[in-house]
Amino acid sequence: MTADHLLLERIESALSGLLPAISKMEGGRAVEAAAYSLTAGGKRIRPTLLLRTAAMFDIEETVAMPFAAALEMIHTYSLIHDDLPAMDDDDTRRGRPSNHKAFGEANAILAGDGLLNLAYETMLAAIRDNPDEKRIEAASIIGRAAGFHGMIGGQCLDLEEERPHDPEQALRLIQQKKTGALISAAVLAGAALGGASDDVREALLLFSDNLGLAFQIKDDLLDVQSTSKKLGKTVGKDQRDDKLTFVTWYGEAKAERFFSETMQRAKEGLERAAKAGLDVTDLASIWHYLEQRDY
Amino acid sequence: MTADHLLLERIESALSGLLPAISKMEGGRAVEAAAYSLTAGGKRIRPTLLLRTAAMFDIEETVAMPFAAALEMIHTYSLIHDDLPAMDDDDTRRGRPSNHKAFGEANAILAGDGLLNLAYETMLAAIRDNPDEKRIEAASIIGRAAGFHGMIGGQCLDLEEERPHDPEQALRLIQQKKTGALISAAVLAGAALGGASDDVREALLLFSDNLGLAFQIKDDLLDVQSTSKKLGKTVGKDQRDDKLTFVTWYGEAKAERFFSETMQRAKEGLERAAKAGLDVTDLASIWHYLEQRDY
Repeated sequence: MTADHLLLERIESALSGLLPAISKMEGGRAVEAAAYSLTAGGKRIRPTLLLRTAAMFDIEETVAMPFAAALEMIHTYSLIHDDLPAMDDDDTRRGRPSNHKAFGEANAILAGDGLLNLAYETMLAAIRDNPDEKRIEAASIIGRAAGFHGMIGGQCLDLEEERPHDPEQALRLIQQKKTGALISAAVLAGAALGGASDDVREALLLFSDNLGLAFQIKDDLLDVQSTSKKLGKTVGKDQRDDKLTFVTWYGEAKAERFFSETMQRAKEGLERAAKAGLDVTDLASIWHYLEQRDY
Repeated sequence: MTADHLLLERIESALSGLLPAISKMEGGRAVEAAAYSLTAGGKRIRPTLLLRTAAMFDIEETVAMPFAAALEMIHTYSLIHDDLPAMDDDDTRRGRPSNHKAFGEANAILAGDGLLNLAYETMLAAIRDNPDEKRIEAASIIGRAAGFHGMIGGQCLDLEEERPHDPEQALRLIQQKKTGALISAAVLAGAALGGASDDVREALLLFSDNLGLAFQIKDDLLDVQSTSKKLGKTVGKDQRDDKLTFVTWYGEAKAERFFSETMQRAKEGLERAAKAGLDVTDLASIWHYLEQRDY
């Protein structure tokens, strides 16, 4: 992200090392399908956030990387399943055919299942090598954020056909869970690895919760403001699909204002963490990047 | 299974307590869909094997139950995804409409994802409460058996459209991974919780590997020998779908012989474990049950 291309390279290298260990003889075409999506680039915002947060506590990158990679695997599997015809039915992802378009639906389902499982295998291997409570807590935070209580819960609610009684509340709840949970978990798992104090965790929770929400509002804004080329996926789809998003519900101007307010609260979280003695330079640069991103 | 209805009741009670903790407000209809499949009964052979094995080492049932429940959640998610139209396209499971028939494809995909995730959340919670190496190892064994190296790998290979060069070898490899891996993991995770010696593990590996293989051969035999009513799913489907199974490849008589030989090797494993000083009575009763099962 932004400045540190080297960090991004190390993330890419960690991710691309995960699947070749499984031979085609063992896993067939779905392993190829999983590698296709996992190594398709992307912003890698979740692993970056986790690694940056852990680094604030002087945690070595090799210690944090399995958890960072796990987060990205979970994110990737969710995109593969989200794009399926029975879900969002998207043909394009990151400028290329979506997984099921390239490998067929069955392989896409199994590739997603396999990536989700591999995320946990990877974290459990790290815990097995060094069974300390910080690693166990980091994995637990990620697990809860990925499941029915978090991301999957958000996706489930997003599917409900009935319009909710209170669309504003529903919108916030769904987005907080669907996108926010994993982004927040990236920061909180990094803090858990670092053995952060309760005060610092609270500050980072304020930061990451609002960063996650802002990230989603920006996504909704980009759906109407960006181009398909930049975004690597279809633009203007939310409106066409009559989807409840911050833009379709509030309108573009109000969503912009909402984005600014949310980013402001995220900044407050960072400031509190700084007051507690943390060097938040790197997290602040992620904040800036998010403010400016146009894809 | 067979004698101990009380054990089965305790398993059912553990499983049915897992999902109501997640409100509909949090997880929508996919949580209902997950509960529909998780509490649909079934033989519960995997959790039974795990609990019985752990009990041989005097491990309390409350210690082993989270891992037993996790195994059954993983098994259940795999059935939900397997039944999807893009996969085996099955309308019936355990005598009721399959998950996507009852809840729609999108909810079935998410219900499966959520159950897989909940399996790991459950094991991680147990590890977090008691961070000992035995629990970590049990979770690692289950994780590896469920992923690309195990069950998912087997499902992937099963999807390959080309006929393999060596169908006999492919058949064994696919079934060993697709069904065998989780059944074997049930026994080995129970042994890991019990801190079994290498000798005992080897004996139990011989038992469980062959029990898993025998279980699959029996499944293939039941597809031609049982009735839809008993089986709770369509009968004679393998032949119709031109599927490579022990029966379609070897014929019924040879598959029967193969089943007996495999069960014999499983018995040898048990005998070795008994020689090492274990009371294998309960595992032997599971062996007997499998020999006689007609559904």
